[in-house]
Amino acid sequence: MPKLVDDTFLCDPPKSLELPGGFRFSHGDRVAPFTIVFETYGELNADRSNAVLVCHALSPGAHCAGKYTSDDAKAGWWDGMVGYGKGIDLSTHFVVCVNFPGSPWGTTAPRSTDPETGKPYGSRYPWVTVEDMVESQRLVADHLEIAKWNAIVGNSLGGMEVLMWAALHPERIGGLISIAASAFVPVASVAWHLIGRKIIQSDPAFKGGDYYDSSDPLRGLQLARMVGHMTYLSNEALESKFGRRRRGGTRQFEVDSYLEYQAQKFGTSYDANSYVRVQAAMDEMDLDEQFGSLPKAFERLRCKSLLVSFDSDWLFPTSEIARLEAAMREAGVDVTHLDIATPNGHDAFLIDYDLLNPPVREFLDAL
Amino acid sequence: MPKLVDDTFLCDPPKSLELPGGFRFSHGDRVAPFTIVFETYGELNADRSNAVLVCHALSPGAHCAGKYTSDDAKAGWWDGMVGYGKGIDLSTHFVVCVNFPGSPWGTTAPRSTDPETGKPYGSRYPWVTVEDMVESQRLVADHLEIAKWNAIVGNSLGGMEVLMWAALHPERIGGLISIAASAFVPVASVAWHLIGRKIIQSDPAFKGGDYYDSSDPLRGLQLARMVGHMTYLSNEALESKFGRRRRGGTRQFEVDSYLEYQAQKFGTSYDANSYVRVQAAMDEMDLDEQFGSLPKAFERLRCKSLLVSFDSDWLFPTSEIARLEAAMREAGVDVTHLDIATPNGHDAFLIDYDLLNPPVREFLDAL
Repeated sequence: MPKLVDDTFLCDPPKSLELPGGFRFSHGDRVAPFTIVFETYGELNADRSNAVLVCHALSPGAHCAGKYTSDDAKAGWWDGMVGYGKGIDLSTHFVVCVNFPGSPWGTTAPRSTDPETGKPYGSRYPWVTVEDMVESQRLVADHLEIAKWNAIVGNSLGGMEVLMWAALHPERIGGLISIAASAFVPVASVAWHLIGRKIIQSDPAFKGGDYYDSSDPLRGLQLARMVGHMTYLSNEALESKFGRRRRGGTRQFEVDSYLEYQAQKFGTSYDANSYVRVQAAMDEMDLDEQFGSLPKAFERLRCKSLLVSFDSDWLFPTSEIARLEAAMREAGVDVTHLDIATPNGHDAFLIDYDLLNPPVREFLDAL
Repeated sequence: MPKLVDDTFLCDPPKSLELPGGFRFSHGDRVAPFTIVFETYGELNADRSNAVLVCHALSPGAHCAGKYTSDDAKAGWWDGMVGYGKGIDLSTHFVVCVNFPGSPWGTTAPRSTDPETGKPYGSRYPWVTVEDMVESQRLVADHLEIAKWNAIVGNSLGGMEVLMWAALHPERIGGLISIAASAFVPVASVAWHLIGRKIIQSDPAFKGGDYYDSSDPLRGLQLARMVGHMTYLSNEALESKFGRRRRGGTRQFEVDSYLEYQAQKFGTSYDANSYVRVQAAMDEMDLDEQFGSLPKAFERLRCKSLLVSFDSDWLFPTSEIARLEAAMREAGVDVTHLDIATPNGHDAFLIDYDLLNPPVREFLDAL
């Protein structure tokens, strides 16, 4: 057991899987060489049967739990769930989180240097798919000699990766938990995503994706993030956090300064090329279309499945998760759908640990 | 009675009220000279008691009904409501619609030429308020010698103007109908509006509002309109109109091409300076804040009032209109709140005439 600090533990630095022959994207492109960054926490047991894959969403990377040093300001992005004695308990589970292709957090990405040109890939980086994300996780599973995950878990886009695993590699999953995600992005959310990408692509500083030699801040990325951020918030949360209040002594709405703060923070760390690619991958995934029907996508799936929705999430409304549940049931899957009442909207998976951890823990314990 | 064509009638050309001394905006600026454009339909009766003011919203102008010539492709923006035998019946009512200051449809606007410089006002045009809109309508009422409106009616921002009339000039109203509007814009809608304005202001072609010497299309205005347009649509409407369908033979989502079409149509006719000003005016209005409390805003109001909400409108949710109703009731107003079930969202006032016209007609008949 590692050293505990604050409410978390000291974790190992990120690991990497080097692919000298490159990574082949599902649309046909190959990028070589290619590095896949991942993190692991806890101990893999002797028969390699206690591994849990945590699939990350658009914004975060492989650092889902722990701190690298006790000085770290923040722990990993799902530290409220993954840890010793937490929902996904590292006392019994070995957790793996893989930074997927397209994301800017370590794995070879649009902002990585192409060794052939000495410049970032930029616009020449391939368009990614959710299948590519799953493939990167599968490669890490093989690398770690994990033939079958005890369980795979993910939120939002991460939950969509879980569902893609269920369709592509059902024999390698012992249980699945998909949170705030569905078999496709519903049209309202697609529309907001499209608007966000158009905003980025319309920013002259974006230069078609080859902007790395300029130091201009990409206002387009900030504005797209504001659009995205709004889709994560429920009306209830907006009312209780901000209402129509103004910033002290000014006429600026508090919600305005909040959106600017969030957008600027995101805009200075995330990468615009990654944003448009990862979000487009999310919108393009459509298990109904890909497999002819949703029950067909799950026809080989035989593991226990838990679907979680949040009643104030309008990016992935409860009705979509109910549709997913019905399709899984029709395919003969042992599925449970838990709709959690919360005012916290789509982001509830990063907030409502009191409500989310007990059912996750119970589900994993019963596997 | 004028000549009837198709489902409508031939109307008079727009009229104008010339103010050589200018128009004084509530924030203190004066623009002189100033022209207020308005239209009238039907006949004002001898005792000038049958006049109905129709207040327009962000997008349209004073042309709310009829066609100027039988060749016109389209009739006025509320022709489904205003006409002979329609909800607001021109057989018995004289209807006035005033293009308010800030709007680009005829009344002196940011894109109007400043006679002093020979150039458009652009960034020097004042920031408008809903009180300015009401003031322009009051000036037209005085000009037409209408001491008291038989009724005032408006949708969306137009409904907010109606409520501002109720607070400022209750003695001049015989009845009011406010549709899909409330005493302020709720925070979620404020946030979307703010994002839209930031998108426009971040477009380098906007040049702080002084872009009239360039022929560049303002992509920022188009993108802001996409954001705005999304807030007018319900999820149900998005699902039934588009779902995740693609345009024949392509991977482009149908909702994408729809948003582009709407945005480009709007972007080539509307004006960005008007958009940011009119929408900011909407967001700034807050009867609770302005009058200390909402019941206080209506303490002098004694006319019959009808509030209409649409259950799928998330720009002005039913709960906000219910709050308005409660405040009016507390102030002693004879108020009715009608919540109409429709999948058409905020835009229902331009669609659901079958549901909207009977109660409007009944309300006006009973005055």
